Amino acid sequence: MENFFYKQPVPIDFGFGKLDQLPEILDRMNLKRGLLISAPSMVRAGIARRVMEQSGNRIVGIFSDIQPNPTVVNTDACAAMLRDYQCTFAVALGGGSVMDCAKAACYVAGTTYCAADLLSGARRIDRHGIPMIAVPTTSGTASEVTTASVLTDTERGIKALLASDYLYPIYALVDPELTMSCPPQVTAASGFDVLAHSLEAYYGKKHQPLTDLAAERAASLVFTHLLDAYHEPENKEARARMSEASVTAGLAFSLTQTAAAHACSYPLTQDYGIPHGEACAFTLPSFWRINCTEGPESARLQRFSKRLGFKSGADLAERMDQMKKEMKLHITLEEAGIHLEDLDDLVDKSFAPNMSNNPVEITKERLKTVYQNLG
Amino acid sequence: MENFFYKQPVPIDFGFGKLDQLPEILDRMNLKRGLLISAPSMVRAGIARRVMEQSGNRIVGIFSDIQPNPTVVNTDACAAMLRDYQCTFAVALGGGSVMDCAKAACYVAGTTYCAADLLSGARRIDRHGIPMIAVPTTSGTASEVTTASVLTDTERGIKALLASDYLYPIYALVDPELTMSCPPQVTAASGFDVLAHSLEAYYGKKHQPLTDLAAERAASLVFTHLLDAYHEPENKEARARMSEASVTAGLAFSLTQTAAAHACSYPLTQDYGIPHGEACAFTLPSFWRINCTEGPESARLQRFSKRLGFKSGADLAERMDQMKKEMKLHITLEEAGIHLEDLDDLVDKSFAPNMSNNPVEITKERLKTVYQNLG
Ligand SMILES: NC(=O)c1ccc[n+]([C@@H]2O[C@H](COP(=O)([O-])OP(=O)(O)OC[C@H]3O[C@@H](n4cnc5c(N)ncnc54)[C@H](O)[C@@H]3O)[C@@H](O)[C@H]2O)c1
Ligand SMILES: NC(=O)c1ccc[n+]([C@@H]2O[C@H](COP(=O)([O-])OP(=O)(O)OC[C@H]3O[C@@H](n4cnc5c(N)ncnc54)[C@H](O)[C@@H]3O)[C@@H](O)[C@H]2O)c1
Ligand SMILES: [Zn+2]
Ligand SMILES: [Zn+2]
Repeated sequence: MENFFYKQPVPIDFGFGKLDQLPEILDRMNLKRGLLISAPSMVRAGIARRVMEQSGNRIVGIFSDIQPNPTVVNTDACAAMLRDYQCTFAVALGGGSVMDCAKAACYVAGTTYCAADLLSGARRIDRHGIPMIAVPTTSGTASEVTTASVLTDTERGIKALLASDYLYPIYALVDPELTMSCPPQVTAASGFDVLAHSLEAYYGKKHQPLTDLAAERAASLVFTHLLDAYHEPENKEARARMSEASVTAGLAFSLTQTAAAHACSYPLTQDYGIPHGEACAFTLPSFWRINCTEGPESARLQRFSKRLGFKSGADLAERMDQMKKEMKLHITLEEAGIHLEDLDDLVDKSFAPNMSNNPVEITKERLKTVYQNLG
Repeated sequence: MENFFYKQPVPIDFGFGKLDQLPEILDRMNLKRGLLISAPSMVRAGIARRVMEQSGNRIVGIFSDIQPNPTVVNTDACAAMLRDYQCTFAVALGGGSVMDCAKAACYVAGTTYCAADLLSGARRIDRHGIPMIAVPTTSGTASEVTTASVLTDTERGIKALLASDYLYPIYALVDPELTMSCPPQVTAASGFDVLAHSLEAYYGKKHQPLTDLAAERAASLVFTHLLDAYHEPENKEARARMSEASVTAGLAFSLTQTAAAHACSYPLTQDYGIPHGEACAFTLPSFWRINCTEGPESARLQRFSKRLGFKSGADLAERMDQMKKEMKLHITLEEAGIHLEDLDDLVDKSFAPNMSNNPVEITKERLKTVYQNLG
């Protein structure tokens, strides 16, 4: 009889074209002086300005100096603007990079710390920050409903996770229409991120009944709709289902955390420039194969695979490989630009704390074999 | 492409023997001066006193003057005690009756109104009440995670629902061990209440993807474990699964609301003294049969039935009838003490607002036929 603790405080407001309701939502919550935090692409597309104009003076500025895999420098700059403009709330409109940066900036703005202090552990997150509404533009990270913010400190060469209940957005506005402009490679990578969240939540050591439910549903949606979203960027049904998959996976992994494929993704992104979701996809089928043939979760993963319509766990893994190939994601070390002589270094850097969430223990030797088998 | 709004702010702390951790939970939340709101049965069993003693002076009094289907009089008395003792929080330890009464009392205590004013609509719930931790002792109402409080005004002859986001408990402590002392008839009735919440959430007009997921899971757990919990009150696995089913169904119907079987239950309880869950069970198979053979949800309900292992929707209904028989719940009008000449009156009283959540429109004539067909 297992115990569990389930929590999901972020209300989810989901629907095509929902962004247009932002002014009413701000009004209802009595939010008056906010910063729009977004990405250069949203500014170029004119969406950022439209949101600001529609807000009826409730949004007083736009910050968009955020790079993919946001840095502590981006975060401190954003926090400075929140302070300068004396903002009492923020709206984060963007992919995981924007939302993660905004989450950390909203906290930092209310302190005398800098983001690097949080990342290094010198300072802890111990109070509420400026309230933030999250509006995702990718179907991937589910940062709109999680406690996590993944930041990079380029100076110290760390990509790491901040996590705290104080980082929850106050509201998730999920408008699938916003994802329709995602280029195929962003759709593919962020879509595999959703799958990684789902599978890792399902087999991760901290899985529990309600997260299992969300994880299975999210995985099933990805297998059914990701390729359509990739091949037909304007397919509304596929986009809506992928948005739903993303936020649903968030309900799961926000509590269970992620596992080995995510642990491996950090150096793959940082040292090899592979986008987050693609970096997760790189080892996800390998860990899935391990976990469904050995260890405490193998029988459960076989049943899971069958419920999703696969013949076996191996069949599900095979499908992931096919999908990666079809969407032109890196499969081999060579494609990823990883030289054999760098493998030991890569392995050494892969042991973030979430590595230990994997149900089968992953040693350095084992991980090296995983990489070598990718060919 | 449907829109949805999902929200579930109550953290769920689930586990056998969890009640023993209440002192730590109060400590962590910095809650200092509380009232324990419970039922006479919990006082007699010595559990109420134990909770108070373990609390290390954090709980300063016990209120237990609450009857099943709690009244506005119970509520006002509880609110008066909360005021007299200057409580800053409450713990509700009991079935739906105790939790519902406590929810309303925690609100009333901070106002100058009486509970009848809320029930009549003369006053609205428009602010936070005293924070309340909910500890269910039945597997049934899920009041620990919902916005609802069902109260009875015996003077005016109304049983009605109060609902407001301000009625959410701040914490749900779900300890299946507490349900082990439930007598078989309470287990049966409250277990069918869970099934009614699940099915009505699944086919109700306001259903949405995340509530569908929770509703299906909860229904599946009830079909698998309710009879075991009924026949073997000490069966820990069955009790745990029914507790899980109850709270999981709560995640669904808290957002969708209930439908026709619940609408019919109110006069059945009030005029015929049938316990809430049994009153819901009385018409649940009839409405299920209607909804899975006609109207917009029929195909979905047939697929739902198959996923749950039934041959068809009719087969699922058949199973409900068998379970009712096996657990000695009322099936016919005669068993329920309803005379044919009172049927028109009963029908007239059955049109609470949730009647209109049913996917197939239920007219008075139709409802009369439903009752007549029960024999
Ligand atoms: N907080 C969490 O729980 C969590 C979980 C997983 C990953 N992450 C982090 O999130 C980041 C990845 O986020 P992501 O996958 O959403 O990608 P991203 O935010 O980095 O965006 C990728 C690229 O797509 C562009 N883009 C985004 N939305 C677009 C749209 N609608 N139309 C056109 N272009 C668009 C961006 O400008 C960017 O160039 C990584 O830093 C990763 O570590 C966080
Ligand atoms: N708030 C909601 O969302 C919601 C939903 C459904 C029903 N309700 C309401 O909840 C009430 C029904 O609640 P219920 O079904 O939990 O029953 P209940 O609370 O009325 O309890 C039924 C009987 O069982 C006894 N009992 C409870 N727990 C026990 C235990 N562990 N051991 C021994 N005896 C125990 C009670 O003392 C009582 O005599 C009704 O008033 C109904 O309208 C509320
Ligand atoms: Zn991820
Ligand atoms: Zn009920």
